[in-house]
This record gives sequence, structure tokens and C-alpha cells, in this order.
Amino acid sequence: MGKRPIIIDTDPGIDDALAIAIALFSEELEVKLITTVAGNVSLDKVTNNALRLLAFFGKDVPVAAGAAQPLICELVDASNVHGASGMEGFDFPEPKKELLLKENAVNAMYRVIMESEEPITLMPIAPLTNIALLFAVYPQVKEKIREIVLMGGSASRGNKGVMSEFNIATDPEAAKMVFLSGVPIVMAGLDVGWKALVMPEDTEKLLGLGEVGKMAHCLFKKYRGGTFKTGLKMYDSCAVAYLLCPELFTVEETYVDVELAGTMTAGCTLVDLKGYLKKEPNAKVCMDIDQEKFRTWFLEALGKCR
Amino acid sequence: MGKRPIIIDTDPGIDDALAIAIALFSEELEVKLITTVAGNVSLDKVTNNALRLLAFFGKDVPVAAGAAQPLICELVDASNVHGASGMEGFDFPEPKKELLLKENAVNAMYRVIMESEEPITLMPIAPLTNIALLFAVYPQVKEKIREIVLMGGSASRGNKGVMSEFNIATDPEAAKMVFLSGVPIVMAGLDVGWKALVMPEDTEKLLGLGEVGKMAHCLFKKYRGGTFKTGLKMYDSCAVAYLLCPELFTVEETYVDVELAGTMTAGCTLVDLKGYLKKEPNAKVCMDIDQEKFRTWFLEALGKCR
Amino acid sequence: MGKRPIIIDTDPGIDDALAIAIALFSEELEVKLITTVAGNVSLDKVTNNALRLLAFFGKDVPVAAGAAQPLICELVDASNVHGASGMEGFDFPEPKKELLLKENAVNAMYRVIMESEEPITLMPIAPLTNIALLFAVYPQVKEKIREIVLMGGSASRGNKGVMSEFNIATDPEAAKMVFLSGVPIVMAGLDVGWKALVMPEDTEKLLGLGEVGKMAHCLFKKYRGGTFKTGLKMYDSCAVAYLLCPELFTVEETYVDVELAGTMTAGCTLVDLKGYLKKEPNAKVCMDIDQEKFRTWFLEALGKCR
Amino acid sequence: MGKRPIIIDTDPGIDDALAIAIALFSEELEVKLITTVAGNVSLDKVTNNALRLLAFFGKDVPVAAGAAQPLICELVDASNVHGASGMEGFDFPEPKKELLLKENAVNAMYRVIMESEEPITLMPIAPLTNIALLFAVYPQVKEKIREIVLMGGSASRGNKGVMSEFNIATDPEAAKMVFLSGVPIVMAGLDVGWKALVMPEDTEKLLGLGEVGKMAHCLFKKYRGGTFKTGLKMYDSCAVAYLLCPELFTVEETYVDVELAGTMTAGCTLVDLKGYLKKEPNAKVCMDIDQEKFRTWFLEALGKCR
Repeated sequence: MGKRPIIIDTDPGIDDALAIAIALFSEELEVKLITTVAGNVSLDKVTNNALRLLAFFGKDVPVAAGAAQPLICELVDASNVHGASGMEGFDFPEPKKELLLKENAVNAMYRVIMESEEPITLMPIAPLTNIALLFAVYPQVKEKIREIVLMGGSASRGNKGVMSEFNIATDPEAAKMVFLSGVPIVMAGLDVGWKALVMPEDTEKLLGLGEVGKMAHCLFKKYRGGTFKTGLKMYDSCAVAYLLCPELFTVEETYVDVELAGTMTAGCTLVDLKGYLKKEPNAKVCMDIDQEKFRTWFLEALGKCR
Repeated sequence: MGKRPIIIDTDPGIDDALAIAIALFSEELEVKLITTVAGNVSLDKVTNNALRLLAFFGKDVPVAAGAAQPLICELVDASNVHGASGMEGFDFPEPKKELLLKENAVNAMYRVIMESEEPITLMPIAPLTNIALLFAVYPQVKEKIREIVLMGGSASRGNKGVMSEFNIATDPEAAKMVFLSGVPIVMAGLDVGWKALVMPEDTEKLLGLGEVGKMAHCLFKKYRGGTFKTGLKMYDSCAVAYLLCPELFTVEETYVDVELAGTMTAGCTLVDLKGYLKKEPNAKVCMDIDQEKFRTWFLEALGKCR
Repeated sequence: MGKRPIIIDTDPGIDDALAIAIALFSEELEVKLITTVAGNVSLDKVTNNALRLLAFFGKDVPVAAGAAQPLICELVDASNVHGASGMEGFDFPEPKKELLLKENAVNAMYRVIMESEEPITLMPIAPLTNIALLFAVYPQVKEKIREIVLMGGSASRGNKGVMSEFNIATDPEAAKMVFLSGVPIVMAGLDVGWKALVMPEDTEKLLGLGEVGKMAHCLFKKYRGGTFKTGLKMYDSCAVAYLLCPELFTVEETYVDVELAGTMTAGCTLVDLKGYLKKEPNAKVCMDIDQEKFRTWFLEALGKCR
Repeated sequence: MGKRPIIIDTDPGIDDALAIAIALFSEELEVKLITTVAGNVSLDKVTNNALRLLAFFGKDVPVAAGAAQPLICELVDASNVHGASGMEGFDFPEPKKELLLKENAVNAMYRVIMESEEPITLMPIAPLTNIALLFAVYPQVKEKIREIVLMGGSASRGNKGVMSEFNIATDPEAAKMVFLSGVPIVMAGLDVGWKALVMPEDTEKLLGLGEVGKMAHCLFKKYRGGTFKTGLKMYDSCAVAYLLCPELFTVEETYVDVELAGTMTAGCTLVDLKGYLKKEPNAKVCMDIDQEKFRTWFLEALGKCR
């Protein structure tokens, strides 16, 4: 059986970088396309970061730039977390600019999906602007998508607002469009991201894991001010972990919706485990993760990135 | 000087039909493209209606089908007003199917706009879903658009909800994206649409205005149950009237925004004539229309449709 | 037949002052109680103003102070319109402090309503905080209230926000509680207030109308910067005009609700003339006023204030 | 030192009954007043239940009936959980009707607070309608209240809606008024209520704890269909547990607000542990409870109820 074809929609971003590395070097996944979207930092920067990562990894995957801003909300980026460039802390090579398609992200995704013999898996680890636009402009792609495995949302509290997670709250309207699109969704949100920890004692191990490990080590030293003590949260790697090792996760099939109207809760994901909203399930939500096994898996997966 | 190139985005719909007729037969406008969007009735029906109209008018303008539903809201159509097909009351010829492009509306608009030497004018007389998607996927078109002259919104009360007009309230998120897009906008909404009346005594005159006049006569007899008495409101014709005869209108340059969050006011346009929202103007809003001159202009314009 | 007993709930305020004058000197009304509420200016100031007015008028009506702030929203007063004290421009006598009850407004209203043999009419010309609290704490008063004749709301645009009127938007939650209380309501809002004009040429006449006329003249010179030209809007006097001369008004019986959730429309009154909300009527809304007759009536009514 | 004076605001309700029992029989608390409010079931029923409980306990505490409905929302009760009467499952004696005051809850609370030499503690274990009205009508009581120790809210998911707890979501406007009132608040919500469990093996012990234990046993057999297996959640007893044994709880001092506008999140409490809302703390929130110690404490406390 061949590799599973995926498209990564991303806004690198430090923890995106690791998730992308693991996907690119995996024997089970074939990254057909990387699309970029404003989120952690501006579109220009995340696109440049994607191209720098590919140069560093020595991988020739086409890149298409997507939305420079959310559908309706103003972009409030996370450069406080990821540094001005979005990937501070490591001296990356020059971006491999020839990999950048002239097509925009929406058209590139459409083409790749329709050209593929096998259904494509989407792995968005960023605000869902591009995916929402893809479905709105080309609804015919829906039936050629195997599933969406996304990093975003929360069944409880948030990390951008009190009750809202960064990727969803950055573009709540797009997120709602995706969750209500009818395409099968796996949501790996804060419920597992907060537990997907790389601990201080893993630092030395990273240094021994080749160039990518070294990069991770350097980025982690900058990430969130370098506070290794309680562990670094590998949010985005949860999406690729689900693709490669779903048995790490405890999953509930349920209805998920996105609040748009709340003055303090816009962007909150409603993970309706008890059925208050009386709707059919539209997503599998990762509610828990085996923390020890994840750490082991993560270090092993990074070790293969060479 | 050549004709002014326009794209009509429409959901015909009885009053759309007359606005399209006037634009197609005008010596001053060149209709480069007609795009369709779900609104008055479903996408299939409005697209079919556009093709039937072109067959009836004997005009070969390409048609591209767009969004089958609003970005987020459920479609609630107006078949109660326009009849099941959207254009009940007249026996149209078979649709001219060869005019239907394989491209979707968003891509067709993008291509036509970028290929045009002159900046294009958009004339949306329907929910703004297609236009919002165009700007989100292809922001580079914005600087090649001369202006948007749209039918929609209200500076006071509504006709779909207490405070919301049909085209805007059908897809409020799309409308907000368009009003905040930075592209110059002329809004011809209910403030003029309610006054753009064809009166009962105009009926006989319509019969004398050739085939298009006869069609108008027949459609009007069905429209809103055929109650001619207080006059029929030519909402959509206000947009084409503004293009051809702007001196009919009293216009205010102001800031317009769209409410998304209200439980009873979602889709309300906020026409901020007094500056409560402290924003720069983004639209010219038609606040009044010379009713007598409009009637005269309308009958004359229909008279040219042969 | 005796005089009609009323309670005035007010936040004087210049145009409140005139409405209170007309009510106090009317032969048809018996003002049983004046209650005050924060609105045009702070509670302390409006209460002091009420007591100054009574001293000036030489009338001994008990006054009870009510809510110092809206139920939930922050108070944003209108001292820009009414001056720092709320009644700038005339040298009022010392407040008649012995008229101030120790009871708060809610308890005083409750007592007066329950003690009255006849059903009481409430005339709120201020935010509806006190009335909402009255109904919530003492629901038994509802059946002893003849009707509420209030100044507030709009069937179209606003004067505090784009779509919201000052009294309603100052405390939207209270307004909703009152409109949905089941008590008969007459709403005299901006639809008539904007037309209830005192014109520049009425100025000289005011000077000839005794002390109260002189006071009105002085206040008007300060009010809204003294721009007499297009007429001064006698908002609050519409409520007392309805009580004394209802034939000045064109009234529609309809359902009225208040939007609480809109980010730009909170405080908008939904005057559902077309039945979009599918609810039974709960109010008579003054949709139009005979402007000439109002002016005549207003000057005559002020002339009786001596 | 004397007993700590408290007022219990309640809607009994099965778990209210146990919390009231513990408070009434405690040596450290003096229950000065019980006020009732519509919530678990209608006002008539909860007031009757309060009087039946007092008859059963043999305690002569005055009772005052309060709000029969939330400020704005429609009442949606919890009779599905508590049974038609609100306290199904035990044969209570006739209500002690002479304990019912003629004063309403708001006035009774006002009087008791102002008459007390010591500051009063409020213990609301019901929707906050009465407390909100008390503060709005009599703001002067605020400085005579020691603190509010309430059952309600959640720092994560809900039990009435996906993100909203029953007491808060039943009257979100009232809850917001109370949280923003400036009075010191201790919030014991679902974060501890879900862990405050009475386990199946405690059943037999209850039977040995006198008449109140027997009552608890009978009520528990009916409560939520009698599913003892995973433990019964003693939500309301958390409030009295905090008063008597605060060391059971892990508490965070933080800002708490209530969402009013969300279409799916209205009534959600925003417990802003990370400071996203940039406001000063207004509450101590019980984030965790020592489950074993709570069980022991609860059985001991019930054991004293004789």
C-alpha cells in the first residue's frame, strides 16, 4: 500500500515546524502540498518560513500562499510567542523560492485534490481560512477528501481567549464553515495539546537527533521565552501524531460548533459531548492523550527526520 | 469613449430580470459576464433563469454559476415572492445552455477582471456571497475594480427582518466582507428601492414597449400576488439606474457596516450618517430618489430593450 | 371626572423640564410622584434638578430617587447635550429638599400604585431602569397600571447609536424587561420626537408665556449649543402630548422588542410593523405626529404653566 | 464568638435540601432567612419545598418568596432532574406556612442585612435573580455583606448548555449583575460540584444517620433516576462546605464575567485565570476539592442533622 497523501495547511510558527518535519520524513505520509495562511505571523513571513523549512529539510514540496487575513476578524498574530519572524532561534538557510507556486492556496488545493487518485487528507495546523474558502468556492472537493485532521479548538478553556483557542479564534467564521461542511473531521485541540509535552530532560536527547533535533533544540530555547520547566506544548504535532499513531489518543465522536456572536466567547468551540445542541456528530474530538507514549513517539519521530 | 464594462452578479428573480434587460440593451454598458448566486431561489433555478433571459433577449453573454449557499447562514429563499421558479408568469424560451461557463463565478470574475484593460464595475443585485469569495481568494482584483454598485441594505427598516434587507440578511458575513473590503461601493438599498415604483397606470404602457415590455407586464402580474395598486418596487433596477442616470439619486458618503451578532438584527446595515461608529466613509449610500423622473427613465429604458 | 393620576419617571434634562412643567400645570393630570433615574446626567444631579424644578414651579410633588446606574451597561450620560448640571442656562431656585422621600423610587412607585384607587399611568421619559426593577420586584403592580406612555425607542434610526435611541440604549436590558412585561405600552420615540419641533420663530412667543416660558427660552438657548435654526426637538413632551392630546399622533399597534446582543445594534428597538417576529402586539407605537398642531399645542400648554 | 449569620437563597431541589440541612444544624452558622427563587422548579413549588423542609427539620427560620422568573430569559426548569415537585422521593410533612413572610425576598434580605450588627454572608444556591434585584434596588446593602458564597458557574464545561451551568444560565443577566457588583464572591461551581460525590457505598451509612440521613437516602434514590453508580454530585453542598470547611478547596482569586450575547454560550462564566480580559479579580473560584475529605465531611455534617 502506498503512502497516504496529505496537504498541510500551516502558519509556521515554531510548533508547526516540528509537525511539518515529522510529516515530511514519515514513511507513511506523502506531503503533496504545503499551503500557508496568516496566523502565528503574517502571510509573507509564514510563507517564507515554509520555504526556509523545506530548504533546511532538503525536501521539494510545492508551496502555495493563501489568505493574508481572516475572513472577517482583524488578524491578531502570535509573534509574542513565536518571535518576530515566527521561527526565531535558529539560523535557517535561504528559502527555496522555486517551490512557491504561482497558484494561490485555494486553487492549488483544488487542483491537487482533483488530480489525486486517492482521497486526500487535509492537515490544517493554522487558522482555517484557506480550508473554508476552498469548500465555499469548490464544494465538489468535499467528496474527494478523506478527512480533515486539524489542530484547533478546545472542549474546555482557551489559549487566546478565556474560552477560545488560537487557530479557531483567529478566524471563527472560517472555522464554523469547516466544522459544518460535512467533511469528516478529527479535532486535536487544547485538550490534548496541553498534554503533548516535551519535557526539559528531553532537551539533551534532541541535540543527539541530528540536524532537525538541533533545530528543535534551538527553537525551543526561544519558544515562549524558553521556559522549559513545565514542558513545551507540541500542539501542532498532535495532528500528525493522530495521523501516524492514532492509538495515542482517546477520541469521542460528537457535534462541534463554533460560537460567533459572544462578546467574550467568539471563537469558542462547542464540543457537545452531552448532546445539548441536539445535532448529529460531525467530528471526532481528541479528548485525551497518553502523555508518556506521546513523548516517546515524538522523540522517535524527530529522530527519523534525517 | 467605449462602453463601461460591467459584471452583473444576480439571482433572477423578477426584478432582477428587468435590471438585466436594461443593462444588456443599454448603449453605455457592456455586460462582460453574468454570475449567479443562490438567493431569491436556488442556484440551479437562478442560473437557469439567467440563461432563459439571455435566450429571450437574444444576447450572448457568458454566465458563470457561483455559490449555492451563503457562507454560514442557511439559505432562506424568496420563492414566496418570485414564484417557485423565481420568474413565474411568462413563458420564456429554452435556456441558452451553451452560454454557461465551466468556470465557477469566482474564477470567471477573476479572469474577466484581470483580462480587462479598463477597470470593471461590479453590479451585484443578489446576496454578496460570490463577491466576498472573489475578494478573499483573489484580493489582487480589488485595484482593478472601478466600483461596486449594489442593490442591498437599508438605512432604516428591512424587508427580510424588522431591520434587515433581503440581499444583505441572506448572507450577512459576505456582506460585511464586501463593505469592509476597501473597494468603492455605491449602495442602492431599500431607502430608494421602496420609492422606485412602477405604478398601475404604467401597465398599459409596458404592453406597448415591445417583447420585453410584454414580459415585464406578465411578470408584474404574478409578482407579489399582482397587487399593482400601490406600485411595484423596482429594487434591482435602482442599481442599473445609478449606473446610467446617477442624477436620479441623492447620495451620502458615509461608513456602512453589517451587524452579525444580533439575535434579531443580524444582517442589519448600519449606515452611519451621524458618525457614531467613528470610521472613515466606505460607501456612497443612495438616500433618496426622484420618483417621477425614475418612472420616466424606467419606462424609457425598458422601451430601448428591443 | 377626576384628574388622571400619573407617575413621572425622569432624568431632567432640559426637554424633561418642559414635559414635567406641562404635566404639573395640566388640569387633566395629577402627578402623584416624580421618580428619578441616572440618564442624561448622574442620579444626584437629576434628582437635584427635579427638586429645583418643583421649587421653581411652586408645586409640592413628592420625589423619590431611583437607580444610579443601568442594570448591566455602564452609564454613558448626555451631559454634552444638556450641560454639566443637566439643566444649564437658567438660574433655578434652591431645590425643595423636603419633597425628597426617604423611600427609593421602586418602593415609592409600588406604594403609590397600590394605594391608588384608580389605575396609575406611568410616564417614563428616561432610561427604564426603575420601571424594570419595579416590575421584577413587585409584579403585582402590573394589573394596577393603566398604561405606560414612554419616550424612547425608534422604528428606524437612532440618536445614541446608528440604530438605537438614548433612553433605550442607556439600559437595553431594562427596556426589554418593560416591553415584555405585559403592561400596555405607548411608545413615543424618535419617529415623532424628531418631528416635535419648536421653531426659531417660537422663541419670542416663549418669552411672553410667563416665568416658565422664560425658563424654556433660556434653556433652549443653551440646549445643543443653541442652534435654533432647524428647530428644537421636544422628545419628552411627546409623552405628555400623547396623554393630553392623543389625536396629534398616528399610532400603530404592533410588537416591539429590544436587541441586546448586537455588537453595533444593542439597544435597537424592533418595531415589528410587518410581523417578521410573529409575536402578538405589545405596544402602540407613535409613528407620526401632526407637526403644526403639535407646535400650537405645545405653546398653548406652556402658556398654561403659570 | 457567635455564629456566623447567613441568608440562604435557594430553589429546593434535592441537593439544595441537603445543603440547607447542613447549614441549619451547623453550630457555626445562624440561618437568619431563607429566600426562594424560581429555578429547579417554579417559585410556588420551591417555596413550598422550603417550608416543608423547615417543618421536617423542626427549625423556625423565616422564609421569603422572591422572583418567579428570571430577569429576561424564559424559565426552563430542571424538573426532569428533581421530579415534578422538585423534591420527589420522600414523604415530607405539611409545609410550615406560618414561617412565610409577607415581605418579598428582596425586601426581607434588605431588612435582615440592615438590621444585623454583623455583616451578613449570602449563600445563593439557585439562579441569582433575587440577589441581582437586591443590589439594584438597595445598593447600600453591599457594604454590609461579608461575602457571597454561591453555587454556580464553571471554569470549563457546563451542565445546562455545552459551556454553561444551570444556575448561571437560568438567569445570565442576574449573574452578571452579581459578579460585577463589587461584593466579595466565592464561586463554587461545577469544577468542584462534579467532584463532590456521594458514592454508592455511602448509602447504607446515610440510613444510619437519623431522620435527615433517611431523607437523603430516599431523595437520592429518586435523584437523576437513582443512578448511584458513579456517585451523586452534591453541587449545593459545596457552598456550605466552603463556609464550614474552606480547607477542602483549592481556590484561585481571579476575574469572572458572564457571557450574555453568545447564541450558544450565553450564561457561560468566563473564569479568567490567565488574565485575557485584563480586569482586576472579583471572585475566589473553587478550582478543586479534596474528594475523600469532602465525603467524610459530608457524612459527618449530615450526621449532625438531628
